[in-house]
Amino acid sequence: MQYHVDGDLVPESEATVNVADRGFRYGDAAFETLRAYGGDVFRWDAHADRLDATCETLGIDHGLSRSDLRARVDETLAANDLDDAYVRLSVTRGAQQGKLTPRPVEDPTVVVMVKPLPRGGVDGADVWDGPAGVDTVETRRIPDAAIPASAKTHNYLNGILARRELSETADEALVCDVDGFVAEGATSNVFFVDDGTLHTPSLDGPVLPGITRDVVLDLADDRGIPVETGFYEPEQVRRADEVFCTNTTWEVRPVARVDGEAFPAPGPVTADLADAFDDVVEREHY
Amino acid sequence: MQYHVDGDLVPESEATVNVADRGFRYGDAAFETLRAYGGDVFRWDAHADRLDATCETLGIDHGLSRSDLRARVDETLAANDLDDAYVRLSVTRGAQQGKLTPRPVEDPTVVVMVKPLPRGGVDGADVWDGPAGVDTVETRRIPDAAIPASAKTHNYLNGILARRELSETADEALVCDVDGFVAEGATSNVFFVDDGTLHTPSLDGPVLPGITRDVVLDLADDRGIPVETGFYEPEQVRRADEVFCTNTTWEVRPVARVDGEAFPAPGPVTADLADAFDDVVEREHY
Repeated sequence: MQYHVDGDLVPESEATVNVADRGFRYGDAAFETLRAYGGDVFRWDAHADRLDATCETLGIDHGLSRSDLRARVDETLAANDLDDAYVRLSVTRGAQQGKLTPRPVEDPTVVVMVKPLPRGGVDGADVWDGPAGVDTVETRRIPDAAIPASAKTHNYLNGILARRELSETADEALVCDVDGFVAEGATSNVFFVDDGTLHTPSLDGPVLPGITRDVVLDLADDRGIPVETGFYEPEQVRRADEVFCTNTTWEVRPVARVDGEAFPAPGPVTADLADAFDDVVEREHY
Repeated sequence: MQYHVDGDLVPESEATVNVADRGFRYGDAAFETLRAYGGDVFRWDAHADRLDATCETLGIDHGLSRSDLRARVDETLAANDLDDAYVRLSVTRGAQQGKLTPRPVEDPTVVVMVKPLPRGGVDGADVWDGPAGVDTVETRRIPDAAIPASAKTHNYLNGILARRELSETADEALVCDVDGFVAEGATSNVFFVDDGTLHTPSLDGPVLPGITRDVVLDLADDRGIPVETGFYEPEQVRRADEVFCTNTTWEVRPVARVDGEAFPAPGPVTADLADAFDDVVEREHY
């Protein structure tokens, strides 16, 4: 693969940042995980809006236009001849010597990493199309008062500590906030279906406003599925009829197990929403 | 300067890590800020113990011996002909493609960065020897349940957000925990003196167990200064007789102002402890 670093395409083995870069020293960086279908980034504007919001929260005034960032992503996809791909776009505050207190951004570091990611279930390649196993973990989500969950940053140890607690049969964590309410997975939003109503934790809690989460809520609305967002205990998830997770790479991913409880994977509402999501991708990209 | 990266000394402009390194992608790394006096690292064993504890918390089983890490630090100091210096030693989980869930560490990344740091007040060079201005901030310290404060990691956005709130006359933040009790500064431990008793937040709260904090508590004990650790509100700090901060680079740093309140900087107990700290450095290194 070729990656895009600071304006240049370079072989991935030579894709580096200086150790003085604040992205390395402090995780002082904003990022987006994007997905390209048919050579084109899914919901670019929504991702670019969220990247702007993260940079605003962190005070990373990078001065780069949206079209410039988009061009770097597109160039990286083209250089690697990728149509269906995972893309990670990062913007750091750049290399600054010395103190933790950030100075104005003079030379932000922009990195685009890509790898092939075929559409799930379309050509049967290795994608995240198997159901998830989920464990409720002890690690609690960082409260918004410490770092706003709406910011998507390179500070990911909270999720890493959550993932490290998983049993062998799980690959995603159910992470609660400090008050014990379900927040999200380590890298996904969590949904459950109970008596025909679709539930997901409210963005009033420490929950990332997922792009796929938004698409799924719109699709549920379109299809007349009742939706409720709120504060839920893990027991309500375990007692639900269906559970699924969403993120950009997983799309709508059924959950087969939460702690000791087994679930149909996918259940009927999950399958319906996953099909509807596929239709959106098909309509927008092919 | 020459830095030490992955076993080699390299010019700082060529000191890089791959963008796939988890230290860059996620801030998935442990570090220590060290200080060398007279060519020798201050309290190496205490720092190495804390680095071990951080790696244990993060599950970074790097397999490197303490003497190997120490040798890399010493080689870097020698290569730059530095006697009195700031040293940053980082150990990351290395480059791993793909998922957030960490795999066993196969090739950790070790980075040693250095820069000259003369002893404060000894030859009058540019060190952190002026009193600090401190503002109480809205950003709250990450609770131990989310990321243990005892771990010193590359996830520093919490401190960066705190520092971004500071007024122009402040350079350190007074950061409270989510319950409103004083935890620490963004990069320092906080002490105050009230009616002759030295107070500092308890390690039962989300507080980094600072090496300098430990030395100062021992020195206070030696000198018969009553010491109390506990949970304090910012108002107790503002009403104190003296306030100071500690960290490895600042040593014992007087605080001249907390929010609207002015303090003697240094006050008599602070000056006494700063002198005693200088004596320790003098005795151990010169």
